[in-house]
Amino acid sequence: MSRPRPVEYADAPPEVRAVFDDIKAARKISDVNNFWKYLAADPALLKRTWETQKAVLASGALDHVVKEMIYLAVSVTNGCSYGIACHTALARKAGMTDAMFGELMAVVGMANQTNRFADGFRLPIDDAFNA
Amino acid sequence: MSRPRPVEYADAPPEVRAVFDDIKAARKISDVNNFWKYLAADPALLKRTWETQKAVLASGALDHVVKEMIYLAVSVTNGCSYGIACHTALARKAGMTDAMFGELMAVVGMANQTNRFADGFRLPIDDAFNA
Amino acid sequence: MSRPRPVEYADAPPEVRAVFDDIKAARKISDVNNFWKYLAADPALLKRTWETQKAVLASGALDHVVKEMIYLAVSVTNGCSYGIACHTALARKAGMTDAMFGELMAVVGMANQTNRFADGFRLPIDDAFNA
Amino acid sequence: MSRPRPVEYADAPPEVRAVFDDIKAARKISDVNNFWKYLAADPALLKRTWETQKAVLASGALDHVVKEMIYLAVSVTNGCSYGIACHTALARKAGMTDAMFGELMAVVGMANQTNRFADGFRLPIDDAFNA
Amino acid sequence: MSRPRPVEYADAPPEVRAVFDDIKAARKISDVNNFWKYLAADPALLKRTWETQKAVLASGALDHVVKEMIYLAVSVTNGCSYGIACHTALARKAGMTDAMFGELMAVVGMANQTNRFADGFRLPIDDAFNA
Amino acid sequence: MSRPRPVEYADAPPEVRAVFDDIKAARKISDVNNFWKYLAADPALLKRTWETQKAVLASGALDHVVKEMIYLAVSVTNGCSYGIACHTALARKAGMTDAMFGELMAVVGMANQTNRFADGFRLPIDDAFNA
Repeated sequence: MSRPRPVEYADAPPEVRAVFDDIKAARKISDVNNFWKYLAADPALLKRTWETQKAVLASGALDHVVKEMIYLAVSVTNGCSYGIACHTALARKAGMTDAMFGELMAVVGMANQTNRFADGFRLPIDDAFNA
Repeated sequence: MSRPRPVEYADAPPEVRAVFDDIKAARKISDVNNFWKYLAADPALLKRTWETQKAVLASGALDHVVKEMIYLAVSVTNGCSYGIACHTALARKAGMTDAMFGELMAVVGMANQTNRFADGFRLPIDDAFNA
Repeated sequence: MSRPRPVEYADAPPEVRAVFDDIKAARKISDVNNFWKYLAADPALLKRTWETQKAVLASGALDHVVKEMIYLAVSVTNGCSYGIACHTALARKAGMTDAMFGELMAVVGMANQTNRFADGFRLPIDDAFNA
Repeated sequence: MSRPRPVEYADAPPEVRAVFDDIKAARKISDVNNFWKYLAADPALLKRTWETQKAVLASGALDHVVKEMIYLAVSVTNGCSYGIACHTALARKAGMTDAMFGELMAVVGMANQTNRFADGFRLPIDDAFNA
Repeated sequence: MSRPRPVEYADAPPEVRAVFDDIKAARKISDVNNFWKYLAADPALLKRTWETQKAVLASGALDHVVKEMIYLAVSVTNGCSYGIACHTALARKAGMTDAMFGELMAVVGMANQTNRFADGFRLPIDDAFNA
Repeated sequence: MSRPRPVEYADAPPEVRAVFDDIKAARKISDVNNFWKYLAADPALLKRTWETQKAVLASGALDHVVKEMIYLAVSVTNGCSYGIACHTALARKAGMTDAMFGELMAVVGMANQTNRFADGFRLPIDDAFNA
């Protein structure tokens, strides 16, 4: 057997349950999604990842919905199907409308296109951008 | 000689000058940056790219500054040094503060990390995310 | 019909069978995995790829299990689902434990995160790293 | 001014100095490298990143030198020049010889090649790899 | 509901139908493929993307089949399963034979391998390549 | 000292000189480019890489210039500056004109854009593409 397996709440050790409880309370959900169940195979990794995610995604200088859309933009650029599915749902929950999603996709596509133009044409960086 | 070369305004054919003039007016700048000068080697590519970028980056359901930050998030994920330099400057001009930049980087880093966890642990997508 | 198709041993020409026989002997398995069956559509590509892989993955200055874990780290970073599945299994067979897998994933995630910080903050390389 | 700037020890607030001191003690170096000086613009990001890196790179089920080589393999796959320079140096310091580096590069190149074969030939994952 | 949905011809507004009609006429097909049905959720994005694709993929200095193979090479490098499936089919339709596909894959694999060697060995660019 | 160093012909062992001589004869050049000088630190890697490259890049079902353009398309997509510089020069030498380069870049940009649309809109693959 080599495939990673999820850890369900009922089978989890106390330090994993504590993290699951915190996620459920913070997100007001009745069960955690697969991401956390698989990371739970390594309790220290689970705890670190959740603590970081909680700090990084909280509203601050950027609104939570903007953070979720940035998360989605990265996931699309990496072609990560789980990240795309998860953060589309979380961005929707945070307020992303159909129109916002369409504009987000247009920017992500444009940026991926022009990044290649910049590299392919071997552009020197303008002095103004180095100031 | 194989390296692409920039086209300066003084040497540009009329259809390139027309695009350069439009960029300068739209962005209120006195000269276009290298990206446009290099694309000008192919006037049709230059015109299409500018028309698309003008449409995509205008404020709509998303604010202009949010679009520039998404552009930057993609450029960082692709490791495109020109895109990073250019869209950091444009995002700053559109209102991105130091605190917003720091939070943007934190989300981009987090997303790049967890995208790999999702792929490496071979996560099945939760039913809720497929609805 | 456009989709690539696998070549099974029974239908394979002699030069493909010779490679399949060598893989089966080297890996002590009764049938080759899909990777080799699909590459067999191009016998020269099959032979070159196997000869290279045999040379590259043999224990040398690095142990075989370390090489399989590096292979897995690259596959995760590329988001290649076949490579992830295949080299998780091969790394397990070579001795990777659950704890080693967890630590591998933690390093892969960390590196993908900090690579983006390095590009996004536009870090100049320290003189000490250029020596 | 839009380009990120480093924070030097002399100008750093106490919470940044505390992290710098911990890095210098842990790595037995007289000054931190640019990575930490730039992240210091966001003290919370600096602290989180260092705490995670310290936990992730410590010897455990995997030796420190193996972890540094995995870090390098990811950085090469991402084409991150700072990560490559930094983790080549750190891997050397941890014991990576010329022969180990050559074998590492051979595996990284091979994996990047065969990941594309797997995707391009649209390989179905073998049942054995899904167990 | 968060998952994007396709727009079928029967339910499409006039500006979407006009694009669908143009695609069907240009490609001599009775229905458009999913790519266009999903983009149709944002009619402006649909129209821009089709106009650009029509201009970019037409035979010019490069034959249509060469353009489709380049499209496929990029899709394989990005690990984009939809792009791989779609442009394998379109390249086949444009004349790509089994032998051409095999050679294409060999070049794509080689380039992905040697790109990593170039970055990992930190190669300075030869003066001749900068001329 | 941790940075890889080039091996010059005058200092090279016989097995490296043999490969250098073969490259110079095949490409009708008086000295090999940096790629080969750095790989020479690992003579087995050098020899394998050259033998593969010679086989892969020879004209076959695809013309040599098409192969160099595919190589360039991959290098641009990976953002590999050495690969871009080297294979722009080699493609030019093989006959790539300014117009061909412009069209190549347009296709590469388009593909990188639409690959992200395909992933972001979570497109199911059409039955016709799976046949």
